[in-house]
Amino acid sequence: MIILVLNCGSSSLKYQVLDMKSESDYSLLAKGLVERIGLDTGEITHSVTGKDKYKIQRPISNHTEGIKSVLELLVDPGHGVIGSLSDIQAVGHRVAHGGEFFNSSRLIDPSVTESIEKCNELAPLHNPANLLGIRAIEDLMPGVPQVAVFDTSFHQTMPDYAYMYAIPYEYYTKYKVRRYGFHGTSHKFVARKAADLAGLDFHNSKIITCHLGNGGSVTAVQNGCSVDTSMGFTPVEGVVMGTRSGNVDAGVITYIQAKENLDYAGINTVLNKKSGFLGISGISSDARDIEQAAGQGNDRARLALRMFSYSVLKYVGAYAAVMNGVDMIVFTGGIGENDPAVREYISEKCSFLGIDFDKELNKGLRGKDMILTKPESKVKVAVVTTNEELVIARDTMRIVENR
Amino acid sequence: MIILVLNCGSSSLKYQVLDMKSESDYSLLAKGLVERIGLDTGEITHSVTGKDKYKIQRPISNHTEGIKSVLELLVDPGHGVIGSLSDIQAVGHRVAHGGEFFNSSRLIDPSVTESIEKCNELAPLHNPANLLGIRAIEDLMPGVPQVAVFDTSFHQTMPDYAYMYAIPYEYYTKYKVRRYGFHGTSHKFVARKAADLAGLDFHNSKIITCHLGNGGSVTAVQNGCSVDTSMGFTPVEGVVMGTRSGNVDAGVITYIQAKENLDYAGINTVLNKKSGFLGISGISSDARDIEQAAGQGNDRARLALRMFSYSVLKYVGAYAAVMNGVDMIVFTGGIGENDPAVREYISEKCSFLGIDFDKELNKGLRGKDMILTKPESKVKVAVVTTNEELVIARDTMRIVENR
Repeated sequence: MIILVLNCGSSSLKYQVLDMKSESDYSLLAKGLVERIGLDTGEITHSVTGKDKYKIQRPISNHTEGIKSVLELLVDPGHGVIGSLSDIQAVGHRVAHGGEFFNSSRLIDPSVTESIEKCNELAPLHNPANLLGIRAIEDLMPGVPQVAVFDTSFHQTMPDYAYMYAIPYEYYTKYKVRRYGFHGTSHKFVARKAADLAGLDFHNSKIITCHLGNGGSVTAVQNGCSVDTSMGFTPVEGVVMGTRSGNVDAGVITYIQAKENLDYAGINTVLNKKSGFLGISGISSDARDIEQAAGQGNDRARLALRMFSYSVLKYVGAYAAVMNGVDMIVFTGGIGENDPAVREYISEKCSFLGIDFDKELNKGLRGKDMILTKPESKVKVAVVTTNEELVIARDTMRIVENR
Repeated sequence: MIILVLNCGSSSLKYQVLDMKSESDYSLLAKGLVERIGLDTGEITHSVTGKDKYKIQRPISNHTEGIKSVLELLVDPGHGVIGSLSDIQAVGHRVAHGGEFFNSSRLIDPSVTESIEKCNELAPLHNPANLLGIRAIEDLMPGVPQVAVFDTSFHQTMPDYAYMYAIPYEYYTKYKVRRYGFHGTSHKFVARKAADLAGLDFHNSKIITCHLGNGGSVTAVQNGCSVDTSMGFTPVEGVVMGTRSGNVDAGVITYIQAKENLDYAGINTVLNKKSGFLGISGISSDARDIEQAAGQGNDRARLALRMFSYSVLKYVGAYAAVMNGVDMIVFTGGIGENDPAVREYISEKCSFLGIDFDKELNKGLRGKDMILTKPESKVKVAVVTTNEELVIARDTMRIVENR
C-alpha cells in the first residue's frame, strides 16, 4: 500500500511517501518539505530516496496549493516516484491535538473532522493547519481514505490524578484545561521498539521514554500505556527545551509580567520562544551550538546543558516512583539519539536504580538502535531512532485495510 | 538563656518564650498569637505552659503595639512568665526571605536589616512585617541582641542548575528570579532529627524531607545540605497545597488569563488562594475536611487527595535520582505528621527503592517521632514533629553566645 504521510504546520508542511508491504517491510520512496506557505517566497525541498535533493522556489499561497505542488512532483517524470496519483491508496495525517475525543488513530469522516475542529482552541497554530491539509486532500484526491494520527492520543490512558492540575475544577469542565501530553506517536513507537530490542514484554513492562529534541518530553509507559508525561496542557511544560522554558514557578510568570509590563500573550511568547537553551545561554536554541560553546568554556552554555540534563533526570526519577520501578529507560529524538553526554549523565545518576551503564559503548554510537547497559544490568538503557511518519503510515495502513 | 521568638506576619504575629539551658535542654514558658493587627478588632491569645489560654480582644494598631502588649503580658503578675523584661536575653526572628544575602542565621545589625529590606520585593507580605518586628524590639528593648533566622537560607547550598529557571538569563541578574525555596528551618531540623533517630551520619547521608502542611515542600538533603527543593521563587511552586496550585503548565496560566480576562495579579490570586485542595475539591483547603468528604464518597475530594499524594511521590522519586539514591524519607508538618494514608501511599509506591514499610506501626501513630520501616529496610521512612521556633531559639542562643 502506497501511503502519503502529511504533517501540516501553520506555514509549512512535511510529507513522506512510503510503500508499505507490511508493518515491518516498507520503503521510503520520497520525502520533502514545503516552507513559507502564504508568504512571497515559498520553497519546496523534495528528496527522492537515492537521489539528490531538488528545490523549487516560488510563492505558495495556501496549503491546498502546497499539497497540489507536492502531488505534481510525486508524478513528475523527472522527480516523481509514482506513475499516477491513483497509486496513492491512503493519506495519513499527523494531527496535533485530539483533546479527550481520540485515544487512537481514526479513519477521517465528517464527525472526526468536526471533533478535530473542536480542539482548535487547544492547538490554535496546528489543528487548523491539519484541517486545511485534510480538506486539500479531499479536494485534490476525492475518495482516497484518510487517517488522523494524534500527537495526544497515546496519553489518553493517564489516570485523572496525573492529568488534572490543582487549579479550580471548573477550568477543566469549562475550558478543558488538563494535561494532554504530546509526542505520543514517538513515545509509543520507541517504547515498543526498545522493549522488542531488550526482549521485554511490552504489555508487562515499565519503560521511561525520553524524546529529546528541540522540543522534549518524558513519558512513563506502564504495560504499554502512557501513565504520565511531562508535557501538559501545552508543549511548554516539562523539561528544558530549545526555546521553551519547561517548568517554571507560576509566581515567576506573574512577577515577570509585572516587571516587564507583559500581558498573557507577551509572557507566553517569552516562555515559548525566548527561553530554554536560548534564554539561558543567550547563544542559540540548538543543543549542538550550546555544546560547542560549553566546550569552549562558556559558563552560561554549560549551565544550560546541565539544567537540561537535570530536568530530564528529575522526570526519570519521578516516573520510576510513579510506576514503582522501571525496567528500561529509552532515549530518542535529535538530542536523545545523538548526545552521548546526556545519556551518560542520566544513566550514571540512576545507578541506584540498578543501571550498569556501558560508557564506552555509549560514546561510539551514532544512529543505531542499541542497548547501552551491560548484559547483567537490572535496568536497561536503550537508544532508538524515532520515526513518527512510519507510525502514521502503519496506523493508516492498518485502519484502511480493516475498514 | 531566656529567648523570645517572634514570627511577624503582615497582620499577625506569633511568639514563644523559651528557657534554653542548652541546645537540647530547654523549656517552653509561654506562647501566643496576636491577630488582626491594624484592624478594628484585634485579638491576643496567650498560653502559659500548664495553664489555660488567655484571650484579650482590643484594637492593635501596629506591630509595635502588638509586641508591646505581648511584653506586658510576659511580665504580668497573673499571666506572665518572667519577672522583668531584662530577663529576656535575646530575641530571635523568623525572617521570610534572605535572598542570596544569607546562607545562615545572623546577628541583626544595620547592614543585616538593610539586606532584609532589599529582599522586600521577593516577599512583599512578609519581609516588611519581619522588619517591623525587629524595629519594634529595638524601640521597646534597646540593646537586646536580635537574631534573624531565614526561611530561605538552608537552601542557599543548591547548585545553580537546580535553582535557575530556563527563562531569559537577565531575569536572574535584573530581578533576582531564581529558586529560593522555603521552610528551610523545618527541613534542616527534621532532617537532622530523623538522621539521629535512625543512627545515620547527617553529614554523610541522603535524606528527602517532606514538610506537608497547609503549605508544603519537599527537599533533597545531601550530606546535611539542601541540594534541591520543590518551592521555588515563590511558595506556590511544587506539591499540591491547601489553596496553592503547586506545579502548573505555564501555558495554563496564560490560557486562563485570556479566558477569564485576568491580569497577572488576578491569576496570581487564583493560583495562591483558590487552587490546591480547595480548587479541586470545591469544599475546603483543609486536608482533614477533604479526607472526611472523600470518606463519604466525594469524588472530587478523593481526586484532590490522590493528586496531593501523587505530587509528593513524584518529588520523592525525582530527588532520589538527584542524589543517586536515598537513605531516608522523612515526613513532617500537619499532614506529614498526622496522615497515615499519605505516608503509606508514598512508602509503598517507593518499595522499589528498598523500603520495607511497617503499615501497622504507621497506622497507630500520633505525634511521636518514629522510624516506620521494618528493621531490615534498606531505605528508612521516618515521621518526626517539626519545631521551627526551637531552631530559631537554638540559632539565637548559639549566635548570641558566640558574639
